[in-house]
Amino acid sequence: VHTKKVPLADDVDLEAIAKRTVGFSGADLANLVNEAALLTGRERKKEVDMSTLNHARDKIVLGAEREVILSDEEKKLVAYHEAGHALMAWLLPEADPLDRVTIIPRGMALGVTEQIPEEDRHSLKRTYLLDRLGVILGGRVSEKIIFGDVTTGAEADLKQATQMVRRMVCQWGMSDKLGAVAFRRGEEHVFLGRELAQQPDFSENTAQLIDDEIRRIISEIERKTQEIMQKHQGKLEALATTLVEAETLEANEIEKIFKYADAQQRSSMNELSAYNPQ
Amino acid sequence: VHTKKVPLADDVDLEAIAKRTVGFSGADLANLVNEAALLTGRERKKEVDMSTLNHARDKIVLGAEREVILSDEEKKLVAYHEAGHALMAWLLPEADPLDRVTIIPRGMALGVTEQIPEEDRHSLKRTYLLDRLGVILGGRVSEKIIFGDVTTGAEADLKQATQMVRRMVCQWGMSDKLGAVAFRRGEEHVFLGRELAQQPDFSENTAQLIDDEIRRIISEIERKTQEIMQKHQGKLEALATTLVEAETLEANEIEKIFKYADAQQRSSMNELSAYNPQ
Amino acid sequence: VHTKKVPLADDVDLEAIAKRTVGFSGADLANLVNEAALLTGRERKKEVDMSTLNHARDKIVLGAEREVILSDEEKKLVAYHEAGHALMAWLLPEADPLDRVTIIPRGMALGVTEQIPEEDRHSLKRTYLLDRLGVILGGRVSEKIIFGDVTTGAEADLKQATQMVRRMVCQWGMSDKLGAVAFRRGEEHVFLGRELAQQPDFSENTAQLIDDEIRRIISEIERKTQEIMQKHQGKLEALATTLVEAETLEANEIEKIFKYADAQQRSSMNELSAYNPQ
Amino acid sequence: VHTKKVPLADDVDLEAIAKRTVGFSGADLANLVNEAALLTGRERKKEVDMSTLNHARDKIVLGAEREVILSDEEKKLVAYHEAGHALMAWLLPEADPLDRVTIIPRGMALGVTEQIPEEDRHSLKRTYLLDRLGVILGGRVSEKIIFGDVTTGAEADLKQATQMVRRMVCQWGMSDKLGAVAFRRGEEHVFLGRELAQQPDFSENTAQLIDDEIRRIISEIERKTQEIMQKHQGKLEALATTLVEAETLEANEIEKIFKYADAQQRSSMNELSAYNPQ
Amino acid sequence: VHTKKVPLADDVDLEAIAKRTVGFSGADLANLVNEAALLTGRERKKEVDMSTLNHARDKIVLGAEREVILSDEEKKLVAYHEAGHALMAWLLPEADPLDRVTIIPRGMALGVTEQIPEEDRHSLKRTYLLDRLGVILGGRVSEKIIFGDVTTGAEADLKQATQMVRRMVCQWGMSDKLGAVAFRRGEEHVFLGRELAQQPDFSENTAQLIDDEIRRIISEIERKTQEIMQKHQGKLEALATTLVEAETLEANEIEKIFKYADAQQRSSMNELSAYNPQ
Amino acid sequence: VHTKKVPLADDVDLEAIAKRTVGFSGADLANLVNEAALLTGRERKKEVDMSTLNHARDKIVLGAEREVILSDEEKKLVAYHEAGHALMAWLLPEADPLDRVTIIPRGMALGVTEQIPEEDRHSLKRTYLLDRLGVILGGRVSEKIIFGDVTTGAEADLKQATQMVRRMVCQWGMSDKLGAVAFRRGEEHVFLGRELAQQPDFSENTAQLIDDEIRRIISEIERKTQEIMQKHQGKLEALATTLVEAETLEANEIEKIFKYADAQQRSSMNELSAYNPQ
Repeated sequence: VHTKKVPLADDVDLEAIAKRTVGFSGADLANLVNEAALLTGRERKKEVDMSTLNHARDKIVLGAEREVILSDEEKKLVAYHEAGHALMAWLLPEADPLDRVTIIPRGMALGVTEQIPEEDRHSLKRTYLLDRLGVILGGRVSEKIIFGDVTTGAEADLKQATQMVRRMVCQWGMSDKLGAVAFRRGEEHVFLGRELAQQPDFSENTAQLIDDEIRRIISEIERKTQEIMQKHQGKLEALATTLVEAETLEANEIEKIFKYADAQQRSSMNELSAYNPQ
Repeated sequence: VHTKKVPLADDVDLEAIAKRTVGFSGADLANLVNEAALLTGRERKKEVDMSTLNHARDKIVLGAEREVILSDEEKKLVAYHEAGHALMAWLLPEADPLDRVTIIPRGMALGVTEQIPEEDRHSLKRTYLLDRLGVILGGRVSEKIIFGDVTTGAEADLKQATQMVRRMVCQWGMSDKLGAVAFRRGEEHVFLGRELAQQPDFSENTAQLIDDEIRRIISEIERKTQEIMQKHQGKLEALATTLVEAETLEANEIEKIFKYADAQQRSSMNELSAYNPQ
Repeated sequence: VHTKKVPLADDVDLEAIAKRTVGFSGADLANLVNEAALLTGRERKKEVDMSTLNHARDKIVLGAEREVILSDEEKKLVAYHEAGHALMAWLLPEADPLDRVTIIPRGMALGVTEQIPEEDRHSLKRTYLLDRLGVILGGRVSEKIIFGDVTTGAEADLKQATQMVRRMVCQWGMSDKLGAVAFRRGEEHVFLGRELAQQPDFSENTAQLIDDEIRRIISEIERKTQEIMQKHQGKLEALATTLVEAETLEANEIEKIFKYADAQQRSSMNELSAYNPQ
Repeated sequence: VHTKKVPLADDVDLEAIAKRTVGFSGADLANLVNEAALLTGRERKKEVDMSTLNHARDKIVLGAEREVILSDEEKKLVAYHEAGHALMAWLLPEADPLDRVTIIPRGMALGVTEQIPEEDRHSLKRTYLLDRLGVILGGRVSEKIIFGDVTTGAEADLKQATQMVRRMVCQWGMSDKLGAVAFRRGEEHVFLGRELAQQPDFSENTAQLIDDEIRRIISEIERKTQEIMQKHQGKLEALATTLVEAETLEANEIEKIFKYADAQQRSSMNELSAYNPQ
Repeated sequence: VHTKKVPLADDVDLEAIAKRTVGFSGADLANLVNEAALLTGRERKKEVDMSTLNHARDKIVLGAEREVILSDEEKKLVAYHEAGHALMAWLLPEADPLDRVTIIPRGMALGVTEQIPEEDRHSLKRTYLLDRLGVILGGRVSEKIIFGDVTTGAEADLKQATQMVRRMVCQWGMSDKLGAVAFRRGEEHVFLGRELAQQPDFSENTAQLIDDEIRRIISEIERKTQEIMQKHQGKLEALATTLVEAETLEANEIEKIFKYADAQQRSSMNELSAYNPQ
Repeated sequence: VHTKKVPLADDVDLEAIAKRTVGFSGADLANLVNEAALLTGRERKKEVDMSTLNHARDKIVLGAEREVILSDEEKKLVAYHEAGHALMAWLLPEADPLDRVTIIPRGMALGVTEQIPEEDRHSLKRTYLLDRLGVILGGRVSEKIIFGDVTTGAEADLKQATQMVRRMVCQWGMSDKLGAVAFRRGEEHVFLGRELAQQPDFSENTAQLIDDEIRRIISEIERKTQEIMQKHQGKLEALATTLVEAETLEANEIEKIFKYADAQQRSSMNELSAYNPQ
């Protein structure tokens, strides 16, 4: 509907656009088309082409590109962090499929790993949420494996993971220990433009059970993520190394890198076994 | 009284309408008649018929129908969730009788199971409340039995169940452990348009006793619900399967499905015993 | 004083009115006379008679009569609940004497048991308060004995009982365990039209002692109330059964019912002993 | 100074007035003289006499007399309660000397026991505070000894005693267990006309120590007060009995009653020993 | 600079004034000179002399003199309290040197012990703070030793001591047990003209450790102060006795009293040993 | 860009300025140039030279110089405190390189140790944060080693260290014990111009774990800092002694002092071994 107002280039793949704009409201879509028309005008092109639409979509979803000067070490760090997210998104069976990875800073982030949900989901299964957790923690785990240390760069990931697990335990009854009970805490209300914390409606002892479950689930997922990533360290390094150069990689490019890394590993294993014939 | 202002079709069963509008105020009833008159006009009919009255009533009670695109997997999930509610409402002796089940999304919900209270109740017995709990948890338990996993779709059920059990324990003296004492917490007052939590008027230790009782009662009911539902899994599957196709089923249709499922089970048991004659 | 302004019928017993309006302020009494004059006018009577004064008084104290349709089962439930209050008021030595029982819904209540304090009390003894507790819990205990279950109908009773026992323990030094210490909590102040909870001025450990004492006192009284009521179950059933029919019973009628029930029981015991001569 | 403006009767004893108005500000004194002049005028007397000055002083300090109808039982209760205060004020060595006892209701109180501080005190010793506690708890202890039960009438006493002991423990370092540390809690600030509770600045464990000390000190004083009062029960009964009749008794009258009671007891002991010569 | 505007008498010792006005701002000094000029005019003197400057300085630092009538017993109490402060200020090696002691009531205080800091300090050592604590607690300890009881008069001392030790433990890392960690609690912010307590940012367990440390440090200092003061009780009594008469004593006078007391004690010891020659 | 508007002297090293203004916004830089131009005019110089630029930069970053009169003892204390920071900045491998140390009071501080971050950092490693902690605690540890006592002068250091470690534990997942969980507490919101504390969203037990980790990490770093500093006490004393005289020392001067101190120590060790030849 929204695309009727502007001339579209032949390369525009509306279905691909739709996939990347799952969850967009009508207003969001109108905004997307306007932004694309604007960019087209600025670049003195006559038709809105696929690349312009993607640019417009990224600006809306991820924020404007930001010029940040990173040292080589920090760039490498960001590349491995994003590669960690991407690898887990590619490996975990229920994770939303990988779309793109970039280390071009945008908005508040130094890098972004994008996934596209296969469909507009309404009810989320526990198993799906656990795989999403694995992807979120993948960045931190990659730092650990490669640099033997963690950084402040995972702050937003930790916050997101904790919030999700808290909802699993407190609102969705996904902890067997706490059962099908709903626990309310820290709901925030807007009062004259600010948030206000609320008294929890449960006891200190329950609060401790909740904390223990959150900690248990997160550390369990972190452990499994580390286990999986170590098995696939070749892929991780291949992706991060390429990412430092290319800065942005699409899903199909990432897949090639991973498959090549697999092939490499197998051949090097063969070599290895050639030297250890018994 | 309210129906005097509009011409009614012959098929209108006022008693049936009355049953479905238990708890309606005079204003609600007037609203119902207006809505029905409006729908009748829009459909260019001359008299308000039963189907139009039911539509008007549903819009008021459940919210307007909402167009939501569900994947086949999600549709199946919703069907089993609602079938779980419906099966328990049919099986539990004190539960309000089943009226209708639908998986057409309305308001915030993806599906609805409706029961009609036999009479306008004022004092609720403990046994009645426990059966109502079984119906509420039936959706989640059905997900567990069929898919071996739970989803975020039961969030509102958990909240409702917890609030009800909390009132049983804290306001209605229905826990022997805590006795005929009234515990006040989290009463909310409106201040400049928002709610504010209150200090509990009991000790931390009492808070823990309350939490333990809430958890104990809910998990006990969940366990029993699972036990009952597993015995009647044939009915559950029959209802859910039909629901995916029909999308909406009335009480009499559901009863037929359940009875047919019972018959099936018995005959298959006979077959089974035929093969195991000893 | 207030009755000088209106013509009174011969049947008006001012002393009886005075007993039923203990605690009325001058304004309340003026209000009572006005209300009675209004009713007299509406009924086109020339003098304010006793029945009109009682009606006016009831409307002020208990709220206007309310039309509520109760099922037979619920009516029976309410009758037994009120009969429980009334029986304890009649049996307990320090309880204010019984005045009237009704199951005609008024204001928020489905039934009312009225007692008249013998005098305007200023200092209340511990023993008096414990008997008042027995009357309050009598409704719930009656439900337990007759139906083997409790209902949500005792919510207001539990709240009232808890508040009274809390004041006994925290403000009146009536718990030996906590002694002559005053504990302040939850005092509420009005701020811009709403209440605000206050921090308790005692420790968590003291809070637990207070809770334990409240629970101990209430469950002790409940236990004793049950013991007493079971001994007098004949009276309870006689009163409740009559109440379902009569809907309202005055003190003298209730007394007759209780005495008749006592006589019945004695004769049936005699019969019983006649069959078991040894 | 203030008395220069009005003509004084010969019976006016300014020193006696001064003793009864310790702590009065200049404005209070001016108020006293005005009130006395007003009363003098109302009674059409020409000079302000001693009785009028005392009336004026009482109205300012204790509130206006209030007409309250007490049953005989309640009057006896109030008399014993006040006699309990008065007896302890007379017996305890550091208590401020007794001035007057009355059971004429005034302001919020049903009776008053007045003491006159010998001097305007600035620093209060621990031993003085403990004796003041004994006087405060004397009313409740008297109820216990005479009626074997306590009443709600001691509510204000308990509050006052608790506040004083709390300050002894938390602000004046008078508990060896808690030592010379200042503990702040519940200080109240005025904000838009209301008070607001404050977070304590100490731990839960310290809060418990404070509570335990408060409870220990109060119950210790209560125990000692009971011990002392039981030894002097003859005096207590003599005073209370006279008070029921006289309603108000001055210090010198009370002294006579106590001395007479002592003499009685001694003679009855003599009688007793006469009958038990061995 | 400020003294240029007024004629100074020959006895004015500017250095002495400077010592007594450490910490004064320029505005404070200007205020001092104005006050002194005013007093000089009022006393019809032509030059500002030393005594007038001292008066002016005292009024600014300590508040105006206040007429309070103390009983002899209270005067003695205040004298021993201040003598306690003064003795510790004289004895403790790191305490700021003693300047003057007075029992003339000023502002809110019944007496004052003044010390003059040798220099304007910026960083305070732990050992200096502990000696300052000894001086603060000296008043209470003196009451204990002489009267065997404590009074409410030490309330402000206890508050000051607790606040100081709390800062030592929570902000200055001076407790080995809690280490170099900063604990924030009860910081107060001004909101519409009032203070608001803040949530502590540490756990209940840490709160208890803090409380225990505060209590330990204060009781340790109190114990040591008592030990030292008992050894020097002769000096304490000499100072207090003289103070009751003189009401104000300067540092040099106090020193003479202490030295004379020392000499007395030695001679009386000699006498004692003369009688116990073996 | 900003320097185009003013004539620069030949000695201006723009790269050096850039290093010292890492993190400056455009407005900050404009401010710097204006301030330098102003100083140049005030000193009647024609070109902005290096020294003037440095002065301008210091005034913006550290605040204006403040005249504070310190005793010799306090000056020595400040010198050792700053020397402690500086020594750790020089010794710890990941600490930002040392730039300058000064004991000229500025703003609120009595002395300042400046480091220049090698690059504008975005993600901070755990190891980097631990070394930064060592530098912060270096001041306090130096006081301990040299004076055997700590002072109130480290208050700001303790606050900064605690805040940093709290974020390591609660937001950056850098404590193995608490794991990759985000804990929110005390976030402050601005409401009518003031901050408001928030309820923690975790249990008391977790709060204790957090406190224990904060305490453990800080005391561990303090212990290691003390160990390292004691090994290099010669350097510490050399720097502090020179600092008392010079008041300000640049990085290259400090390096010379440290190297000379090393040489001294080695030669004195040689001497020592010369006397203990075996």
